[in-house]
Amino acid sequence: MYSETITKLINQFERLPGIGHKTAVRLAFFVLESPKNFSEEMANALIEAKEKIKFCSICYNITESDPCEICASNKRDDSIICVVENVKDVVAMEKTHEYKGKYHVLHGSISPMNNITAGDIKVKELLERLKDDKIKEVILATNPTVEGEATAMYISRLIKPLGITVTRIAHGIPVGGDLEYTDEITLIKALEGRRQM
Amino acid sequence: MYSETITKLINQFERLPGIGHKTAVRLAFFVLESPKNFSEEMANALIEAKEKIKFCSICYNITESDPCEICASNKRDDSIICVVENVKDVVAMEKTHEYKGKYHVLHGSISPMNNITAGDIKVKELLERLKDDKIKEVILATNPTVEGEATAMYISRLIKPLGITVTRIAHGIPVGGDLEYTDEITLIKALEGRRQM
Repeated sequence: MYSETITKLINQFERLPGIGHKTAVRLAFFVLESPKNFSEEMANALIEAKEKIKFCSICYNITESDPCEICASNKRDDSIICVVENVKDVVAMEKTHEYKGKYHVLHGSISPMNNITAGDIKVKELLERLKDDKIKEVILATNPTVEGEATAMYISRLIKPLGITVTRIAHGIPVGGDLEYTDEITLIKALEGRRQM
Repeated sequence: MYSETITKLINQFERLPGIGHKTAVRLAFFVLESPKNFSEEMANALIEAKEKIKFCSICYNITESDPCEICASNKRDDSIICVVENVKDVVAMEKTHEYKGKYHVLHGSISPMNNITAGDIKVKELLERLKDDKIKEVILATNPTVEGEATAMYISRLIKPLGITVTRIAHGIPVGGDLEYTDEITLIKALEGRRQM
């Protein structure tokens, strides 16, 4: 239906998450019908992003300078490490303006279904950081999914023997949520995590 | 929240149609977390598409060779021109394998709301083609929207004095559609376009 060059562009768009064939076709034609500098600017942004942005050698968050701003900052509590699955989770935590410790990005979660083991994510690198005596607490903020829970469990077992406090972020009914429409697992978690008032 | 380089990449994705801020952020991070060759391949596909693909100097469809395959083909009836708004409409028509004439892509429709006049679309170029005596019929296949109808009306008025047959594609209830759920305008069009059985 389409020429080879167009098919190539469509295929590239289809590799992006959440972009199906029809959307990819729409995006490809949008690019073709746009002025030439549009695709040039986009191509440059892609190349530049990959060139400039690397992973922080300490926390594995993305950064333009190594170590990243958070790791380099002396205004942040370096006795606490918050362990998250992805870079976007760091952004979500930072948006709260509440957490003042450091981070560790695992870049995934243990998932036997997808053939991802502890060796594929940055667990070893986390343990390496814990050799520093300054660290008093590790907050496991992996997602409340099967994989996230398994990863938290796995890491906590490795850390506990080191005498470092390991905590897990609370799961329960989200603020503004409705008990009636909350799923059973979340309700069980909410009950388990109840606190005295 | 994000560094300048990431913001730039997010903004580029946001320029694509149907991509909002959240999706743009998701796509940008996907690119950042992908191997380097991913963004390189995508950048190349963008540049290559814009370099290789141009508009046919006859029908203004996109093509890698000028004139395009359809215009150059002697298997297609060059006495009929089907006028469409966009390149994708040509693809849609070709998928039917029914139409054997030529095309003319307007690259838009007359839309005073968006400040698009007849001079902004390829109407002049269509009239130029009609100077050829071979052309017996012009099928107006612009979309059944306010803009598409207005464009069809405008073009038909220009062509009729030339003694060329001007037709409009039929509007009505789509095959498999339900009378109960068909909007009033479509039903009116369906009634207007009724044919003897």
